[in-house]
Amino acid sequence: MAQPTLAVVGATGSVGSVMLELLSSRRNHWGEIRLVASARSVGKSLTCRGERLDVLPLTAEVFDGVDVAMFDVPDAVSEHWAPIAVSRGATVVDNSSAFRMRPEVPLVVPEVNKDAVKSRPIGIVASANCTTAAMIIAMAPLHDEYGLRELVLASYQSASGAGQLGVDTLHDQLAKVAGDRMLGSRTGNVRQAVGDDLGPFPAPLALNVVPWAGDPADLGWSSEELKLRNESRKILGLPALKVSATCVRVPVVTGHSIAVHAVFAAEVTADGARQALRNAPGVILVDDPESGEFPMPIDAVGTDPSWVGRIRRAMDDPRALSLFITGDNMRKGAALNTVQIAELLATEIAKRST
Amino acid sequence: MAQPTLAVVGATGSVGSVMLELLSSRRNHWGEIRLVASARSVGKSLTCRGERLDVLPLTAEVFDGVDVAMFDVPDAVSEHWAPIAVSRGATVVDNSSAFRMRPEVPLVVPEVNKDAVKSRPIGIVASANCTTAAMIIAMAPLHDEYGLRELVLASYQSASGAGQLGVDTLHDQLAKVAGDRMLGSRTGNVRQAVGDDLGPFPAPLALNVVPWAGDPADLGWSSEELKLRNESRKILGLPALKVSATCVRVPVVTGHSIAVHAVFAAEVTADGARQALRNAPGVILVDDPESGEFPMPIDAVGTDPSWVGRIRRAMDDPRALSLFITGDNMRKGAALNTVQIAELLATEIAKRST
Repeated sequence: MAQPTLAVVGATGSVGSVMLELLSSRRNHWGEIRLVASARSVGKSLTCRGERLDVLPLTAEVFDGVDVAMFDVPDAVSEHWAPIAVSRGATVVDNSSAFRMRPEVPLVVPEVNKDAVKSRPIGIVASANCTTAAMIIAMAPLHDEYGLRELVLASYQSASGAGQLGVDTLHDQLAKVAGDRMLGSRTGNVRQAVGDDLGPFPAPLALNVVPWAGDPADLGWSSEELKLRNESRKILGLPALKVSATCVRVPVVTGHSIAVHAVFAAEVTADGARQALRNAPGVILVDDPESGEFPMPIDAVGTDPSWVGRIRRAMDDPRALSLFITGDNMRKGAALNTVQIAELLATEIAKRST
Repeated sequence: MAQPTLAVVGATGSVGSVMLELLSSRRNHWGEIRLVASARSVGKSLTCRGERLDVLPLTAEVFDGVDVAMFDVPDAVSEHWAPIAVSRGATVVDNSSAFRMRPEVPLVVPEVNKDAVKSRPIGIVASANCTTAAMIIAMAPLHDEYGLRELVLASYQSASGAGQLGVDTLHDQLAKVAGDRMLGSRTGNVRQAVGDDLGPFPAPLALNVVPWAGDPADLGWSSEELKLRNESRKILGLPALKVSATCVRVPVVTGHSIAVHAVFAAEVTADGARQALRNAPGVILVDDPESGEFPMPIDAVGTDPSWVGRIRRAMDDPRALSLFITGDNMRKGAALNTVQIAELLATEIAKRST
């Protein structure tokens, strides 16, 4: 049989380029691959699976004959174009937040709920938010073991979560502040040194932490904070899960980290939690602080799994655990999760046609 | 009457230098001021209140005639020398952790429990840990209003919490990583760029977050994490307060931040919490995210108060609040709190002698 045809919509973006890298390095599931981007990228060509491919403009016709289309584009673009791709016969795997919370769209992290992909009444499958994805593949096995009731989360999110502009902005700011040893003390002014070029951030990121990510949502919460709540509930199938998150941007290029305090129905032990995580798909356990082993962005970058460590049972509650998680937000948090879902669909198509 | 005599022990350190600055800029409570440091600093002189003062060696005799001695030195030095200072007639205000948890030593944050200073059976008053101090002056008024039951904390601690070596190490590392735009991506290696010079940290701090501060304590917790628990309980007089903290070092020079999830006995409102904080001593409320107003290290550095914002009532618990706090760890977290306690003692001495 012919292998399925894949479209990559948003192929020239920073997540798109990680998608092409993954498609080139993972076991191949695909026949033709079409790279699609906005009109302004047409004329470019990119390498995928060792082949040079021209970038095609985003039109309805580009989806003719496409089996699976991965989208990494802004919400409004997904909202408009995903249904068009579906109408042309493609199944869409969308990494924007446009469809994630719609009841007729499955929200999938393959290590946790891969069967959800099977029911997709409007032909669209959503890939989870970057911070949620990294966190949830560590929480799912703990939920299986102990029954999750509540999450209190504080994030340490990297610049690349705000796209290539976020990365460029952080590097620009670092170049401006490096070498000035007064900065960050009472006599040095980081705002002045950085200047007006804040890129996608509401404040300077170099030598700072910014307790805000996303857009204003309800009652003082940010959209990123509510995504963590809503997506965790949906992926785990726990509509009453209590979630309070504070999302904070830190001067790290790639790699989102999360300090997690999780309350369970049953009593927990740190060793039991470690055991559950040691065998969990997509998780790497790094939990030996005395040897300097804990999850950190500089180690997680460029890797697929969620790094999990600092596992401690709460001193005041035998049903609560504290832990620390780091994942490459460009991979598990974006490109990898989307590619994994697309591969589930490719496998389904292959089975169906045999 | 003669004004009391003050000794500053550890005057040449980074916290010591902020102490001298504060003594020079605040209303004067002191007659003679003696600057004391280890033998290796003797021969140096420093400016305080516009006067040049010679640094004196740490001996028993240096405390003769001293009314109040502020100590900012390592735990072991405090442990040895504070009782000697007391035996020579001084009252000691100690900023190390050596005495903080001893039942016969009051642990004081003046905005919260200044009356505790009055009972000091062994002549020693302890100043709180940097992260605790910044956090507790915001939590105390909320406790008064709603009755605090539980704290879940995640910190964003700056390099200067690890002393001048921490600051120098971060600046050195920033100079090494700035300009290399591959760093923090899958093709750049921060560990390699930074090299072996990690200073006081267990891993590179530039372009990274390090989920570890302090020394290994019980059951996987770090000493910094347990300080937050134990000191919060003691300062607020709540021995059963539930506290789970995760302490994380971030690439910021000065300014510790804390994401707080607080559970109370009574139902809360965000507006009620803001009102309680607006009138609280030592607190500045910065809570207008849509205008880019939230607490951040680059703004808090060099200032006295705790900056508090991002106040939200939990969506799933009417008795819980999330908030974000930033304070200058060299001031409220160290030098300022110690100086404030010393000034309480100076006022007491002045009253006694009139």
